[in-house]
Amino acid sequence: MSTTLKVALLGAGTVGTEVARILDQDAAALTQRAGARLRLSAVVVRDTAADRGPHVPRELITDQAEDAIDGADLVIELMGGIEPARTYITRALSNGASVVTGNKALLAAHGAELFALAKDNDAQLSFEAAVAGAIPILRPLAESLAGDTITKVMGIVNGSTNYILDKMDREGADLADVMAEAAALGFLEADPSADVEGHDAAAKAALLATLAFGAGFSIDQVHTEGITGVSATDVEAARAEDQVIKLLAIVERSEGGVQMRVHPTLISREHPLAAVHGAFNAVFVEAENAGQLMFYGAGAGGAPTASAVMGDLVTAARRSLAGAPDHTVLSATAVPALPIEDAITRYALAIDVTDAPGVLARIAQVFADQGVSIEAMRQTGYPSAGSDAAASASLRIITHAGTQRALDATVAAVTELDVVTGITSVLRVEGN
Amino acid sequence: MSTTLKVALLGAGTVGTEVARILDQDAAALTQRAGARLRLSAVVVRDTAADRGPHVPRELITDQAEDAIDGADLVIELMGGIEPARTYITRALSNGASVVTGNKALLAAHGAELFALAKDNDAQLSFEAAVAGAIPILRPLAESLAGDTITKVMGIVNGSTNYILDKMDREGADLADVMAEAAALGFLEADPSADVEGHDAAAKAALLATLAFGAGFSIDQVHTEGITGVSATDVEAARAEDQVIKLLAIVERSEGGVQMRVHPTLISREHPLAAVHGAFNAVFVEAENAGQLMFYGAGAGGAPTASAVMGDLVTAARRSLAGAPDHTVLSATAVPALPIEDAITRYALAIDVTDAPGVLARIAQVFADQGVSIEAMRQTGYPSAGSDAAASASLRIITHAGTQRALDATVAAVTELDVVTGITSVLRVEGN
Repeated sequence: MSTTLKVALLGAGTVGTEVARILDQDAAALTQRAGARLRLSAVVVRDTAADRGPHVPRELITDQAEDAIDGADLVIELMGGIEPARTYITRALSNGASVVTGNKALLAAHGAELFALAKDNDAQLSFEAAVAGAIPILRPLAESLAGDTITKVMGIVNGSTNYILDKMDREGADLADVMAEAAALGFLEADPSADVEGHDAAAKAALLATLAFGAGFSIDQVHTEGITGVSATDVEAARAEDQVIKLLAIVERSEGGVQMRVHPTLISREHPLAAVHGAFNAVFVEAENAGQLMFYGAGAGGAPTASAVMGDLVTAARRSLAGAPDHTVLSATAVPALPIEDAITRYALAIDVTDAPGVLARIAQVFADQGVSIEAMRQTGYPSAGSDAAASASLRIITHAGTQRALDATVAAVTELDVVTGITSVLRVEGN
Repeated sequence: MSTTLKVALLGAGTVGTEVARILDQDAAALTQRAGARLRLSAVVVRDTAADRGPHVPRELITDQAEDAIDGADLVIELMGGIEPARTYITRALSNGASVVTGNKALLAAHGAELFALAKDNDAQLSFEAAVAGAIPILRPLAESLAGDTITKVMGIVNGSTNYILDKMDREGADLADVMAEAAALGFLEADPSADVEGHDAAAKAALLATLAFGAGFSIDQVHTEGITGVSATDVEAARAEDQVIKLLAIVERSEGGVQMRVHPTLISREHPLAAVHGAFNAVFVEAENAGQLMFYGAGAGGAPTASAVMGDLVTAARRSLAGAPDHTVLSATAVPALPIEDAITRYALAIDVTDAPGVLARIAQVFADQGVSIEAMRQTGYPSAGSDAAASASLRIITHAGTQRALDATVAAVTELDVVTGITSVLRVEGN
């Protein structure tokens, strides 16, 4: 095999060093599969003095990104963040070099612009590593389902929060305790807000919507709620009804546009997403003809994410050699992102009430007045802490599907009832 | 969009009529995604008089396959069986037309020859529908994991047998009763042997191995055992140990070659494959860097399988227009298929013994003599029917990993012990 493609690596952190290791150790197999030798030509880092391990040759380490990019046939961007990643990727694509990136923040903010630039320069911009780590989701959505119509995608796309919720479910533990433990084990960043407040999942939701519906969406269009409000009582109540709480990134085609939201969600234990434990990720897809599909795997970590990067790199090399790069082509007409008030889901509410005759009827009447239909209503064994147990009770209400708007109005009206001492939990319910 | 690609459909059964429906109903979206109008130009059937529903125009129905193939840019083969499918696909590829097929029997027997023919003629041969129905598995294995090394694939790839085993697990029912019910519900063919004896799964195993390991394998190299020997007692014993029995197609890279086998398998209820219920399929993949992945979805049915066909068709159209068809390129050097005697797994055995002192020690000694290491051994509450309950007991033994050869020798030696009245079950165990 005589052809050689030069590969510039921007960023040599956990994933980058794994990419360098695979390029080194599996060189022969990669050459066969790519149809060309993939030769690491530069490793761009900020701190050129730091040791990057045995697979990053010292002589390739540089902080001169422009030179590295200009000398490469393929560029791997693993620096993260918006700048200088955006500038570097723009430079590479303008050179006609294909780019592989795992930068979800950048794509969720500027994806449409970069996809268009790639197409204009007949270069390929691949980003399998940006959504759900090692799980192949980009090609299944873009190619395998190219002859179908995707209606809904629900993903467990943040491993840290799934680890936390799974642990709460298995051990009945409090959120604070599990978070402390997760931090100690390294499952949680020093500043965990991007994970637990749902921002990481929101960026991935925008990317999933972009892939599933062929139009550009950005993170600021995603309604985002984290897991900080999920209590041990919520988890226990779910368990009692054979349900489990997962932080889901949900994107859904709806009349007039696309609904994008990230929030803690009740699903049945029979649902395939319920079997996703620990820090694993999964993406559940509903399509008109294919029905229900699910893709499961490691959502993070050096080697798994590097696997996704390498799959993109080999495929980009093949396409580049064939002179026919793949493009993510988005529709010219924008597809509206719908406001959360229009989201239609089922809800589970926990309401503390005074235990007096007629309370259920009065509450049910409020729901009826607001046009929210009740699927199930029962008194539970979970009066809220601090309430007068003798004189109070807790109700659990599951609604049929309704809009967020109607639910908000219902919650407001129920809160005003003198028999209601508090609404302690409102969670959305997905699946059957 | 001015370009039109003519599509010949060979076969108009359950899947074929769904393909025709989608081509008709979703024409506008398909044109946008494929980059060309996909126009049905002929529907080849044996019985031209039969009505094929509203989406198969009468004037396109013909029994002249050669003319239909020669007039098409893309050919969809959904007839099944070896001939005339093989002749027709050969003709289409020789014409330079890309072919989409769901014909697992043909590919498991003659795949390598057809892939080579496609490459020689710069045409694309796609077959997503041949393995696990709607589940995207072809592209994930061939592209997403192109930069990784796949070590093992375990698939639930036959919906009928998964439906049966799932029902036995949930209801404690006998195989015969569930099979009768499944037949009545249409989940089982009139002649169920291809399903329950594992032959359908074996063809898919050969295809999975071909994709995962980049070398041609055929169905006759797959060790195949069906589910007819699985008893309600086996299922109950598994349940008692928090395990479930699934019919798995397992292909595994091993020293010196590839191991391919289909058999009922014990797996932990915590394993992702254990959560695959009813007639659903799933393919579980282990790769060196990606770790564990799983792909889940409908394994059969008209619309789901048609979704896979349409994904292939749209992608083939795109690649054809770009002048760069995808090829399944197999390694020139053959990779040996290893005999089942070399397969290394754990085993669960149920052994009926006379209930006398020293029995456990004698049996354990036989295992030790044969070099098979015991992980767990316990007396169970399941003496075999008809045995003298007062004087007999049942043992359940789980081994550490060993070869089939050693296990076979152990079983033969244990059977000869005077204290052993029978070995009632031998099942392989996978996962942790």
